[in-house]
Amino acid sequence: MEKALLEIEEKARLARAASRPLSYASSAQKDAALKNIARCLLDNEPAILEANLKDQNEAKASGMLPAMLDRLIIDQSRLEGIAKDTFAIAALPDPVGEIFDMNTMPNGLIIGKKRVPLGVIAAIYESRPNVTVDIASLCLKAGNAVILRGGKETIHSNTILAKLIRQAVEQAGLPKEAVQFIENTDRNLVNHLLKLSDQIDLVIPRGGAGLISYVKQNSFIPVVAGGIGVVHVYVDADAKVTDAVNIAYNSKVQRPTVCNAMDTLLVHKDIAPVFLPAVAAEWSKAGVEIRADEAALKILENTFGCKLIPATPDDWGKEFLALIAAVKVVDSLDEALSHIARYGSGHTESIVTQNYTSSQRFLNEVDAAAVMVNASTRFTDGSQFGLGAELGISTQKMHARGPMGLKEITSYKWIVYGSGQIRG
Amino acid sequence: MEKALLEIEEKARLARAASRPLSYASSAQKDAALKNIARCLLDNEPAILEANLKDQNEAKASGMLPAMLDRLIIDQSRLEGIAKDTFAIAALPDPVGEIFDMNTMPNGLIIGKKRVPLGVIAAIYESRPNVTVDIASLCLKAGNAVILRGGKETIHSNTILAKLIRQAVEQAGLPKEAVQFIENTDRNLVNHLLKLSDQIDLVIPRGGAGLISYVKQNSFIPVVAGGIGVVHVYVDADAKVTDAVNIAYNSKVQRPTVCNAMDTLLVHKDIAPVFLPAVAAEWSKAGVEIRADEAALKILENTFGCKLIPATPDDWGKEFLALIAAVKVVDSLDEALSHIARYGSGHTESIVTQNYTSSQRFLNEVDAAAVMVNASTRFTDGSQFGLGAELGISTQKMHARGPMGLKEITSYKWIVYGSGQIRG
Repeated sequence: MEKALLEIEEKARLARAASRPLSYASSAQKDAALKNIARCLLDNEPAILEANLKDQNEAKASGMLPAMLDRLIIDQSRLEGIAKDTFAIAALPDPVGEIFDMNTMPNGLIIGKKRVPLGVIAAIYESRPNVTVDIASLCLKAGNAVILRGGKETIHSNTILAKLIRQAVEQAGLPKEAVQFIENTDRNLVNHLLKLSDQIDLVIPRGGAGLISYVKQNSFIPVVAGGIGVVHVYVDADAKVTDAVNIAYNSKVQRPTVCNAMDTLLVHKDIAPVFLPAVAAEWSKAGVEIRADEAALKILENTFGCKLIPATPDDWGKEFLALIAAVKVVDSLDEALSHIARYGSGHTESIVTQNYTSSQRFLNEVDAAAVMVNASTRFTDGSQFGLGAELGISTQKMHARGPMGLKEITSYKWIVYGSGQIRG
Repeated sequence: MEKALLEIEEKARLARAASRPLSYASSAQKDAALKNIARCLLDNEPAILEANLKDQNEAKASGMLPAMLDRLIIDQSRLEGIAKDTFAIAALPDPVGEIFDMNTMPNGLIIGKKRVPLGVIAAIYESRPNVTVDIASLCLKAGNAVILRGGKETIHSNTILAKLIRQAVEQAGLPKEAVQFIENTDRNLVNHLLKLSDQIDLVIPRGGAGLISYVKQNSFIPVVAGGIGVVHVYVDADAKVTDAVNIAYNSKVQRPTVCNAMDTLLVHKDIAPVFLPAVAAEWSKAGVEIRADEAALKILENTFGCKLIPATPDDWGKEFLALIAAVKVVDSLDEALSHIARYGSGHTESIVTQNYTSSQRFLNEVDAAAVMVNASTRFTDGSQFGLGAELGISTQKMHARGPMGLKEITSYKWIVYGSGQIRG
């Protein structure tokens, strides 16, 4: 164990040292490294698939459910997808080096900010092996060194992917030590890693609620976490019913297992008798289970084919990640706003309305990473928001909120051009 | 103790609840509250001075040194200064509500960002009672609720100041619960406060290194910390000697007890024989002690009046906060850059040079909150950088770096204007 701890420290030190030249590497150099990674992955398909097969076999032997198993599979087409994503990241604009807020002060000092990499980012993640390539590529593109610590379910895949990434980076003339991979999946090592605040600037946990809260509670290093989405759609009295049905359906059904899928539908009492049966009819075709409050139950009890059960207090504020929706009838916009303030997780909230004042109040008063009017909650996503790629979705307010793209893994430094000024 | 813990939780809950209406209070309302605070402080001068006298007497009785004692004194002129600062904060532009990065996407969604308050900020600070008013005013101006926990040396002053602030806020029609004050200075309560991540969005520790690392290591809440400045001035071979002397003198002597004062002077070997005696002569008039490396010792040994002692390894990377400077002769810009990378604390670094390439390399390669060319390090400061006011200087890279003004205690939310869009 002692040896493993020292190894972690050494990796963090190597990453820190490599982050310095990487921080001012040219865009061309970084892009060459990324393209090299993509090509290197394609060139080594047989070895990657073989390693992945080992993960699959071990997962099957351990009795992993098919849905989970599917997440860790790499086949030819998925590998091509990973390489394509890496080429796409290479093609994005480099966030580093932007100069902004530059002003000349009365004393002649020219003062402003220059965008710089954060330095060293540690990513702690679970299952999907594509995350290894994704995060490494995004970090390198933004000039950051990265320490990767994936889950043990994909250890064989991650090990070879990390080895190939390091090779590709080195071939492109950048320090391979900018990418560190922790093979030992002992949790005590994660705990040790989280204490190395002199070497690591940011920790990004990607995975379930357990992982995220473990990281938050044990880290001496700043953490940007997210992923938990308790998402509401509020259908206002003045909603267009067709919009409301489309948005409630799409928000719930289009991809129910992700964080921006709707969990609770709030409906104004004046529109509930018309709207609720309409959305329930659509949902029933997709097999959505409705957990309804008393008023919604009453309206829906005779709707044909509806999977209807009474809501319990636990259903409010719950992230279902499944074809289940909690439904509540509210008396007013104010009640909807209070419900969201109490139960929302600060991810995405959407109002459906044709009323101008309601839309403005909702945008103004709801405190969440993304607040929408007349749009599906499924749009909260780096590529949909125009960021090109995303590392995750932050539900905290510090540093970055909502989808995190390249700019969100940078910082800035103040730069000052003087001509001999001293302070009086 | 149990009761005190529950009280802390209740205060955090009240602050969270008050933060909601405060987040969309108008600029006029917030400014009215700030002006009311300033007036209220002036109106209650006798009571404030009386409370402060108690603090002074207890401090004297406990044997506090005069320099420390001076920091906690409030007299009439200092109180007027505090009120004036509060009026000045009221006069700054409101950072909240700015809409930026707004774009229309190909699907017609209009997506952008709106600046919003962080929510609830906890400030944990030591000595100076003006910090109570400063931080409360800055937080309120940016729409944040605040939980104040000052040191026990100024408990009487802080208690009355917080009471008056709450009164003034309420009189202006904003919730007084937006300002919470923790009277019990038991450190266990701070530890408990640092765990309340559901109610508090940011912790700002202001004080010595011990306080800052305690907060960082015990907080479940994001922390923005700073204050430790190991600051270098590098005098390049091509420096203008008069500039170099002025900048090295000003950086060290103008206010030696603060974080942006210079600690280590690095001098290129080619200019050292001319420059070092010149700066040592100036420094000796101010009583600066020089801790010199071997090469610098040799050059300075015959300089008249110079307080010269050999540097020990501990002197590199040390924040002196006193009239002491470490001095090292380097062979090259590269050696200076390596020294700074190894020993700097990421606060402020300055190069003195007339060489264009050296200046660009220094700006590019040094990783610090503020990187300067031909300017005194003493300029790293919110008001000098044009922020109007400052909560502190961050030496971390997440969220805010360098001087933190009003904008640095805000976040943003993504806002989305749709017209019925769903995701395909």
